[in-house]
Amino acid sequence: MLTVYSDKHALRDARTELYGGELVPPFECPVRAEHILGRVREVGLGEVIAPREFSLEPVTRIHDPGFIHFLEHCWQEWVAAGFKGEAIAANWPARGMQQRAPHHIEGKIGYYALAAETSITDGTWQAARASVDVALTAQSAVADSSSSAFALCRPPGHHAAGDMFGGYCFINNAAVATQAFLDQGAARVALLDVDFHHGNGSQAIFYDRDDVLFLSLHGDPAEAFPHFLGYADETGHGAGQGYNHNYPMGPGTAFDTWGAALDDACAKIRGYAPDALVVSLGVDTFENDPISFFKLTSDDFRRYGASIASLGLPTLFIMEGGYAVEEIGVNAVNVLQGFEGD
Amino acid sequence: MLTVYSDKHALRDARTELYGGELVPPFECPVRAEHILGRVREVGLGEVIAPREFSLEPVTRIHDPGFIHFLEHCWQEWVAAGFKGEAIAANWPARGMQQRAPHHIEGKIGYYALAAETSITDGTWQAARASVDVALTAQSAVADSSSSAFALCRPPGHHAAGDMFGGYCFINNAAVATQAFLDQGAARVALLDVDFHHGNGSQAIFYDRDDVLFLSLHGDPAEAFPHFLGYADETGHGAGQGYNHNYPMGPGTAFDTWGAALDDACAKIRGYAPDALVVSLGVDTFENDPISFFKLTSDDFRRYGASIASLGLPTLFIMEGGYAVEEIGVNAVNVLQGFEGD
Repeated sequence: MLTVYSDKHALRDARTELYGGELVPPFECPVRAEHILGRVREVGLGEVIAPREFSLEPVTRIHDPGFIHFLEHCWQEWVAAGFKGEAIAANWPARGMQQRAPHHIEGKIGYYALAAETSITDGTWQAARASVDVALTAQSAVADSSSSAFALCRPPGHHAAGDMFGGYCFINNAAVATQAFLDQGAARVALLDVDFHHGNGSQAIFYDRDDVLFLSLHGDPAEAFPHFLGYADETGHGAGQGYNHNYPMGPGTAFDTWGAALDDACAKIRGYAPDALVVSLGVDTFENDPISFFKLTSDDFRRYGASIASLGLPTLFIMEGGYAVEEIGVNAVNVLQGFEGD
Repeated sequence: MLTVYSDKHALRDARTELYGGELVPPFECPVRAEHILGRVREVGLGEVIAPREFSLEPVTRIHDPGFIHFLEHCWQEWVAAGFKGEAIAANWPARGMQQRAPHHIEGKIGYYALAAETSITDGTWQAARASVDVALTAQSAVADSSSSAFALCRPPGHHAAGDMFGGYCFINNAAVATQAFLDQGAARVALLDVDFHHGNGSQAIFYDRDDVLFLSLHGDPAEAFPHFLGYADETGHGAGQGYNHNYPMGPGTAFDTWGAALDDACAKIRGYAPDALVVSLGVDTFENDPISFFKLTSDDFRRYGASIASLGLPTLFIMEGGYAVEEIGVNAVNVLQGFEGD
């Protein structure tokens, strides 16, 4: 399988994450991508190429231009305001408040944020752009070959909504790639999110559309980030009614339950008969992930890769989360090897 | 003038505030109240008494019971979850997300928060309860005597909405006291907020009611916290239409402009003919306040105290913000002395 990778991901190297009331070294860190790339090479998964550079046009098919402008300029505005730390939202448009983007960066960052754990730093924008270039380059390869590819994206993307960042995500790589399939002529695309965390950004982006079937297996939002989206009763809206499927699962969920949910999701994908499949691939479902509560083993990743392959679809894997850094390479590549039947 | 004060305010002694992407010692700190009390005694403002203990009944006239339960138990739930820092919201129900309180404290705190600068700590609940007892004791004195009193509240309250804390505020002391006047027979109460920051909580609580006239002079929300409420076009809703007046003002505003806004507000209060006046008294309008941008001098505080006195109303002063700690006593008591004609 082709892998697309950019070493510009390393420009996203925040010092701080707000976690448990402390500023700690971020769980989402550069070595994650390095370990995955190392494993791709170790097992000889296939060719590794650098991304092409795309314009922002495919990105603004998904994201609000004001949001993109904010992402590009946030760090400079933050520094100019005299703040000394990394750029972190400390207030936001809460219940009953105005949905107007303030002028001052202290407020503007809250308008465009859905969480405060994720800082914006020097280099974040450049890394996020390279990450979506990785996704679009891999998408192009899948579209051209009708086979599969692995976009080794970092930073991840699935929490990013049309106009909000958070959950370590800035540009929604999977959503941009999904839209690219459609813009190139696909009639229907399925977007399957197997990251431990609900793909709230992807869901929100496609919630009222029937040309994208979104399915997410994840920790129950009553117990897990993003906490405010991902319930089973969120089934789509308007034309999108019936095209959104959530599988929230509780603490301690192991592969017997998780795999059954995946089988159900795969059956729905078959029924939808999409032209392509995009997989938001997070491996924080792993039993030893430090911030998640599912109990999948490394072997389980290989097993579910095979399940996804059985769909027989042109398939684009987009890297999302996974914070058990030592095992992230084995776990992510196990999915791809399982998919390849290796 | 009678002052009500409780030394239990010192139980609110957080170590951390999220500011500019760093965790810094909080601007809202115990010495603030001590300096104000010292100045009250230094000038011989009048008797200083401790508060009576009230039940939660007057508090739940304003605040959601689920929110009050959260405030009472947040710190214990946070510690039980294994978090090491003070309790700070790191995610929230952002645009398009569910307004459901999650089970896990990591999500629950975001549901009940409107900002992340304010941590919840051991002792916060006890101090917030004592603070609202201070407000209610002073309210009772004003109601009984038809004169004036100073509730030396700490923590402050005006940012707290019916079901959200933030901006250093937990229970909205001014709103609870305002409701107490009404519940004791007042037909109309005016709530004048002269803190530098918009009184978003107070506004939201009374926004659809005509028995409370709310007026706030404050930094333009496009430039200043709380950033998402306090615009001039917020004039009330339903029965409350026309009973909410905001005076947002820009950086560098001095007393010529600020005093003219106060005169306009006082004219509206006269027209409303309330039975009592509650003043949310913040002195962060001071020229040397470290986190605000108005330019009032210490003498200006005395001048506007006289303007408020000219309304001739039973008046309850509720202490809110002010972060120029060395001058906070002089500035706050200057308002009260100006009111007394001293």
